Amino acid sequence: MRRNRERLLRARETVAVGKISGAVGAFAHLDPVVEDKVCKRLSLQPAPVSTQIIQRDRYAEFLGTLAIIASSLDKFALNVRHWQRTEVREAQERFTVGQKGSSAMPHKRNPIISERICGIARVVRANSLVGLENVALWHERDISHSSAERVVLPDSSIALDYILHKATSLIEGLVVYPKRMLENLNATRGLIFSGQLLLALTQKGISREQAYEWAQRNAMRVWDEGEDFKTLVKGDADITAHLSTEEIERAFSLNSHLKNVDLIFDRVFGAHRTMDHSR
Amino acid sequence: MRRNRERLLRARETVAVGKISGAVGAFAHLDPVVEDKVCKRLSLQPAPVSTQIIQRDRYAEFLGTLAIIASSLDKFALNVRHWQRTEVREAQERFTVGQKGSSAMPHKRNPIISERICGIARVVRANSLVGLENVALWHERDISHSSAERVVLPDSSIALDYILHKATSLIEGLVVYPKRMLENLNATRGLIFSGQLLLALTQKGISREQAYEWAQRNAMRVWDEGEDFKTLVKGDADITAHLSTEEIERAFSLNSHLKNVDLIFDRVFGAHRTMDHSR
Amino acid sequence: MRRNRERLLRARETVAVGKISGAVGAFAHLDPVVEDKVCKRLSLQPAPVSTQIIQRDRYAEFLGTLAIIASSLDKFALNVRHWQRTEVREAQERFTVGQKGSSAMPHKRNPIISERICGIARVVRANSLVGLENVALWHERDISHSSAERVVLPDSSIALDYILHKATSLIEGLVVYPKRMLENLNATRGLIFSGQLLLALTQKGISREQAYEWAQRNAMRVWDEGEDFKTLVKGDADITAHLSTEEIERAFSLNSHLKNVDLIFDRVFGAHRTMDHSR
Amino acid sequence: MRRNRERLLRARETVAVGKISGAVGAFAHLDPVVEDKVCKRLSLQPAPVSTQIIQRDRYAEFLGTLAIIASSLDKFALNVRHWQRTEVREAQERFTVGQKGSSAMPHKRNPIISERICGIARVVRANSLVGLENVALWHERDISHSSAERVVLPDSSIALDYILHKATSLIEGLVVYPKRMLENLNATRGLIFSGQLLLALTQKGISREQAYEWAQRNAMRVWDEGEDFKTLVKGDADITAHLSTEEIERAFSLNSHLKNVDLIFDRVFGAHRTMDHSR
Repeated sequence: MRRNRERLLRARETVAVGKISGAVGAFAHLDPVVEDKVCKRLSLQPAPVSTQIIQRDRYAEFLGTLAIIASSLDKFALNVRHWQRTEVREAQERFTVGQKGSSAMPHKRNPIISERICGIARVVRANSLVGLENVALWHERDISHSSAERVVLPDSSIALDYILHKATSLIEGLVVYPKRMLENLNATRGLIFSGQLLLALTQKGISREQAYEWAQRNAMRVWDEGEDFKTLVKGDADITAHLSTEEIERAFSLNSHLKNVDLIFDRVFGAHRTMDHSR
Repeated sequence: MRRNRERLLRARETVAVGKISGAVGAFAHLDPVVEDKVCKRLSLQPAPVSTQIIQRDRYAEFLGTLAIIASSLDKFALNVRHWQRTEVREAQERFTVGQKGSSAMPHKRNPIISERICGIARVVRANSLVGLENVALWHERDISHSSAERVVLPDSSIALDYILHKATSLIEGLVVYPKRMLENLNATRGLIFSGQLLLALTQKGISREQAYEWAQRNAMRVWDEGEDFKTLVKGDADITAHLSTEEIERAFSLNSHLKNVDLIFDRVFGAHRTMDHSR
Repeated sequence: MRRNRERLLRARETVAVGKISGAVGAFAHLDPVVEDKVCKRLSLQPAPVSTQIIQRDRYAEFLGTLAIIASSLDKFALNVRHWQRTEVREAQERFTVGQKGSSAMPHKRNPIISERICGIARVVRANSLVGLENVALWHERDISHSSAERVVLPDSSIALDYILHKATSLIEGLVVYPKRMLENLNATRGLIFSGQLLLALTQKGISREQAYEWAQRNAMRVWDEGEDFKTLVKGDADITAHLSTEEIERAFSLNSHLKNVDLIFDRVFGAHRTMDHSR
Repeated sequence: MRRNRERLLRARETVAVGKISGAVGAFAHLDPVVEDKVCKRLSLQPAPVSTQIIQRDRYAEFLGTLAIIASSLDKFALNVRHWQRTEVREAQERFTVGQKGSSAMPHKRNPIISERICGIARVVRANSLVGLENVALWHERDISHSSAERVVLPDSSIALDYILHKATSLIEGLVVYPKRMLENLNATRGLIFSGQLLLALTQKGISREQAYEWAQRNAMRVWDEGEDFKTLVKGDADITAHLSTEEIERAFSLNSHLKNVDLIFDRVFGAHRTMDHSR
């Protein structure tokens, strides 16, 4: 969203231009100083060169920028919908006391805000194409862009404004279930640590291919027979010939996965954020 | 437009389906006979299989059909804009007595209706993408399409209806200038007959390459020096060695270009139109 | 896919037209009978009216049709990706013995075919826009469509062919886990029957609002406290005042959800499929 | 094109990021310092936060930027096609001696490069949509964008590179016909000065409405009866009651239309170009 904010500010600047240069842009009947003064009064830059109109690549950039932002919101909302799935349930949209859920199924809490954001994003995306089609106009005079822009410029602006508000409120009210997250992690019975086991073996000089085979054959039994991965690994003679019990335990530690998480947050939000990581 | 009419009727039929099959489409609490009866009452076909909703490929076809029709109107309007160019002026939009033209230039009659049709067509085209993005929904329940359809289904329907009316009135009122058309044809000083000259020469056994060279060298002088093509051709010894004056005259006859025009009209509009040419 | 097959056959017919009508479509130098004969030989219909080229609405329909079909495959593949989620795992792509999964995580089986289908569908969708933009050409001669079609006509055809094959093989090899499906259903501890409970209560004369409240208050406790829904319902005095134990048991029966499933299959695939349900 | 160059540089910077942060972007098995060092070596910025992949809004911006640039080239090529129309012929693509023109019509020089640029621009525009659809991915792992990007990233880059080269060579070789331009201006028999006449009258205190009516009634006779506008104006008693012959002559001067043209060139290309006019 930081990148999107920058894009939006830039796009706003790109369209903040004006022109008072006459019917074909040649200042035939008006001194350019008028354009300068009026634009200044309106906080606009005079377009350096114009025809009857301002060039449409500017609005294409504006509409394209709205489309990228809408797609970013789409991405967040899409993931909320995933998290809120009955089988996942790691987070869900705020559900106020007394609120009705699904009309047919009283137990259900549907991610209606997220679905709406995803839907509206499709409209904003599609409108960006109108912006692109509007660029190639005829000579000094062609107002075919006008009727189209009367639809898409307000529609995309309003639609993005709407889903930005919805997304903000969605994030503010998001109910997160850390306990459920842990349950989901544990539901694989240790399989999520297969990558670390692989690394632990290769650090002992085992070839990656070999280590992969040993890890995979145990992993498949977990999926297919419902066994616990760590237990199987501890009973695998090939593996225990190279890894001690302590080393196996370390490979199955969640903390090692999280050890650099604070650093990532610091990169993005931290006081010491360097320029290198600012975009 | 005949093809478009067929497409529209077909698309209307494709979306004229209903479903009353419950929250996941399994008729858990309702007999399918209810669906049959209600749909019949509404002149709809029951969807053979549905989830919480009717499948969205139907609406994608509908929106895509509107987009093709809008693009066909775009094509017609685009050509009106060409005809109405100051330099071409072979046809123009109806201009009622007392109507103002361009606000800045009293002499100008702008093709404002045609430009509007071209612009609106871009919106209808873009909306068809929303229809396509709406097809891939999740499982039995996903209403992300809903917010998007509330925008694009009415917008595209209304927009197409609007430009269909505008295009109809545009065609009804189109002012055609046959005299100007003839002037434009003659403005090339006979060059438009170069193809016929080419054929006349090849029918005399001259190779196409040779004939092309003879025709082109005279044609270029017409462009560059403002000469009359037929006069130059009559004075070209290579050509007159193979074509008599009468044969050259025949090659420069407009009527031979038009000899099959009635047949084309008959193919499209005629009473004896065969099935082969009906689409 | 039955609808898509019809669309494809229709689109193929729409583009199976030819023209040999000369440089501006007027049959100036060629008898229309030649067009008829040549087209017949090529199993094409002669275009009833043409310019230098055949009208592009035909190809727009073709490309739009490919886009709808690709979007339908996208939909199926998207749902496979959902089913194959670690937390859902109700079905997955065929995984041959000895096949490697995720390179970093030996236990993971990624839905790589499904993801590829979803990605390629985006390309086919976007190409349909080129088809629409190609419709509005200039007068009798404009070949701006040509360079674009050399890209999108083969690309969309090949891409759709590819993902149709991939989707066929995906469906043929799909590994389905019915036991896991049942586990997922039961994971809601009876909540999925809330709709049936609602109906059972309303059939006793309870208002829908009242029944909703009774069902929801118990449902919320299931979500929030991990209780079993049926047990809670059986202990809810308001509900048991209207429903006997036997009636509650009936409301919690899975079979009633499935009672009309065979009829749906029969509608779509059955020998006695009536015209009404054929599309 | 100056704006486009800025956009392209910015977009290149936006995608010049790398990540070596592991399978879910958490640096579980690798120190972030590795990412820093490797990215530095490759002249990339490390993505501040990543998942299995780099976020796709960056590539959406890149593809959208290519689409805007392609649309700008489309605009230029479209106008070349207009200028090269037989009826306009104010400029045309370079036509080398000995080059063949239209195969059927030896006299014709078709704007084939311009038409190709217009066509290819449609492909680049459409591909930008794939970039937008790729943004909303699932969680830390979803490579559905990959298959699509393997098509559109190289295709759009190559296609834009191609039409940039074509457009450059088109502009370098453009043959401009100033004499023909003047003929086209004069072809309106003075009508293009109607705006100036309007202003001259209003400067004498005539209401705009009244001046418009006087100008339009003479203009319509020029269109409809082929008269010369200035001659008619000089014979219009209402007009001559307010404008002297000298004032009428001044209103029909081409130079007054061009008086500020150098200033516009200076704004865009000049040494003294100020920041205000640089974009």
